[in-house]
Amino acid sequence: MRGQTGTPRLLRTMNERLLLDRLREHGPASRGDLAKETGLSKPTVSSALASLEEAGLVLMVGAMGGRPGPTTAIYDMNAQAGHVAGVDIGRDWIRVAVADLRGELIARQDARNTARSAADLVRRVRRLADRAAAEAGLAWSAVTYAVVGSPGVLNAATGSLDFAQNLPGWGRPGLVDRLRAALEIDLAIENDVNLAAVGEFAMGAGRGRRDFVFVSVGTGVGMGIVLDGKLYVGARGAAGEVSFVPTPDSVVSTQDSRERGMTEAVTGAAGVAAAAREAGMTVGSAREVFEAAAEGDPTASAIVAAEGRRIGSLVTAVTAILDPEVVVLGGGVGRNLDMLGVAISGRVKELGPLRPEVVASTLGDSGVLQGAITRALEVARDRLFSLRTG
Amino acid sequence: MRGQTGTPRLLRTMNERLLLDRLREHGPASRGDLAKETGLSKPTVSSALASLEEAGLVLMVGAMGGRPGPTTAIYDMNAQAGHVAGVDIGRDWIRVAVADLRGELIARQDARNTARSAADLVRRVRRLADRAAAEAGLAWSAVTYAVVGSPGVLNAATGSLDFAQNLPGWGRPGLVDRLRAALEIDLAIENDVNLAAVGEFAMGAGRGRRDFVFVSVGTGVGMGIVLDGKLYVGARGAAGEVSFVPTPDSVVSTQDSRERGMTEAVTGAAGVAAAAREAGMTVGSAREVFEAAAEGDPTASAIVAAEGRRIGSLVTAVTAILDPEVVVLGGGVGRNLDMLGVAISGRVKELGPLRPEVVASTLGDSGVLQGAITRALEVARDRLFSLRTG
Repeated sequence: MRGQTGTPRLLRTMNERLLLDRLREHGPASRGDLAKETGLSKPTVSSALASLEEAGLVLMVGAMGGRPGPTTAIYDMNAQAGHVAGVDIGRDWIRVAVADLRGELIARQDARNTARSAADLVRRVRRLADRAAAEAGLAWSAVTYAVVGSPGVLNAATGSLDFAQNLPGWGRPGLVDRLRAALEIDLAIENDVNLAAVGEFAMGAGRGRRDFVFVSVGTGVGMGIVLDGKLYVGARGAAGEVSFVPTPDSVVSTQDSRERGMTEAVTGAAGVAAAAREAGMTVGSAREVFEAAAEGDPTASAIVAAEGRRIGSLVTAVTAILDPEVVVLGGGVGRNLDMLGVAISGRVKELGPLRPEVVASTLGDSGVLQGAITRALEVARDRLFSLRTG
Repeated sequence: MRGQTGTPRLLRTMNERLLLDRLREHGPASRGDLAKETGLSKPTVSSALASLEEAGLVLMVGAMGGRPGPTTAIYDMNAQAGHVAGVDIGRDWIRVAVADLRGELIARQDARNTARSAADLVRRVRRLADRAAAEAGLAWSAVTYAVVGSPGVLNAATGSLDFAQNLPGWGRPGLVDRLRAALEIDLAIENDVNLAAVGEFAMGAGRGRRDFVFVSVGTGVGMGIVLDGKLYVGARGAAGEVSFVPTPDSVVSTQDSRERGMTEAVTGAAGVAAAAREAGMTVGSAREVFEAAAEGDPTASAIVAAEGRRIGSLVTAVTAILDPEVVVLGGGVGRNLDMLGVAISGRVKELGPLRPEVVASTLGDSGVLQGAITRALEVARDRLFSLRTG
């Protein structure tokens, strides 16, 4: 309501956008329904729909008889007016999904990440993108916009990804340009944990929440923040780099904890595996520790409880600073909330009166893809809409 | 641009608000200037100004000759159309300020807080409010809106302030109603550190920043968060309660650290004084430790450096979670950034690659009052404006 001059053109744009969003959110409707719901006059609705139809953004999808009077035309958004893609580049897996403008997934391809260099990884991503597009019955070049999720924080100055220790060669300058060149469509790169938070907000455990955080504990430890319904990334894009939160659960400051951060060094999957080896277990990974604990191994159970206490410290730090409505926990380690929950809340109670609600992620390994699709849709819808007005 | 139906009435309201905000932000102007700057037609400007003048929100402040053609009427906002008050209730001081609608302070009263109970404190606040109003040449009842800053977090369910350990009786239910009854005008109660953050944003070290935090280290340890230019308070109003952030700088979990929080127990003023006594100094307060360090006392200097390292841990936790543009440091202990800075950045470097910018608060003991006035103005301006439209 402030700072904008009211003009007839602005009014037309507002009304067309209002109708388009209404059709997307609530499905097909007649002119009369739209006029009633929006408070706009029927002639205004008709002229806005005509303009949207001409731009290919709205379709007449049928006519409805059976009411008194002549048959009524029914309008809907044109979900095929464009397509978007989501790409998830992780240490172990690469995934690509293609969706229509309504957000329906129409193709998904997953492949093991066995790349040995950044160049190799970029080539594999392109191959997988072509396969996903083919599955959707499209050329990859027909995708309006893609969002790529990756560990690390995009450094706009160098075009490289900072803090992406877990992918070989991924931190070098020019990576972003290389990815753009290989994929040949317009795209954005975003932190994978941030995208997973967007995914949980759009269709997972964060649905209907205004302020929440998604904490991922796996190989890395990271956090995505949704505030007032929008992703919050901080002044340099590094918000949620919680691997660097100091923790009372490690008193020794090692080189490892300086590079990966104190929290990631002790709370990440490698910390769990190291604790198991120190306790005399012959396991190779955090996953095996959780499996042993599930089978009742007392040493493994103690290690899982200690991990829960460390996660409890992190959850307390996050709650004291952000007071989110809910903490959604995910990642290879964090997804075991059933085994970690008691230790987490025990530690939280020890540390003060704050009582965060901690829930498990519901999207699992689809979180990053869902978030990428959601973000790509926002951009693609705005672009297709302004092409119309422009 | 979304979700709102364009109507002529909405246009009128948008245009009147646009002109009023323009006059407030940039000062007096003629109809012609306003038309040129806003892109509105002269008749639209004239009719909007007439409506605002009738409501008493705009004044014709003079006429300007010397240009070709007839003399030109000059309009300005009416800064006397209402008044607001800010109240700062702290452990040691109570302060009240009165300002006009432009935000000019026209009165300020400060008094030592020697109250022994919540009832006594509420009475003293009212007396000081009357004195401030008298100084401004008003009756207190003529104040449109007041914002009261206090330690703690308002619990809407019980009407009490949680986490306000440093004021006697302040945590009891009904405190808010009692304060409203005593002051007899419409008011809001907000966390004092949050208000200080708003003050720094409006006219202190946070000016021109979109995302920043104000960290206060004194008797208590707290933080106010400004995100995207707005105060962020979290889902339950407890965002920034950083006293409860776990810290590696205290390995022992005492009862004190559970109630006040680990960070406040070791990093607050009492922690500094306790460390000094443990080191054999005969001081009563953190202030005396800083005075001794300033005079070159080596024991005191070591204690100040240790305090800087603890603040460095807190700054790292905050930066890893929020990535603010800048950390503004204030409070009785924190204001000594000149003596703490080296130890803070040394500790930050030890903990990882994050490099927050830490600057000193520029408002000192006026921060809470300035923030309270800023918040009260937002409410008062909206109210006076909608009374006009209503």
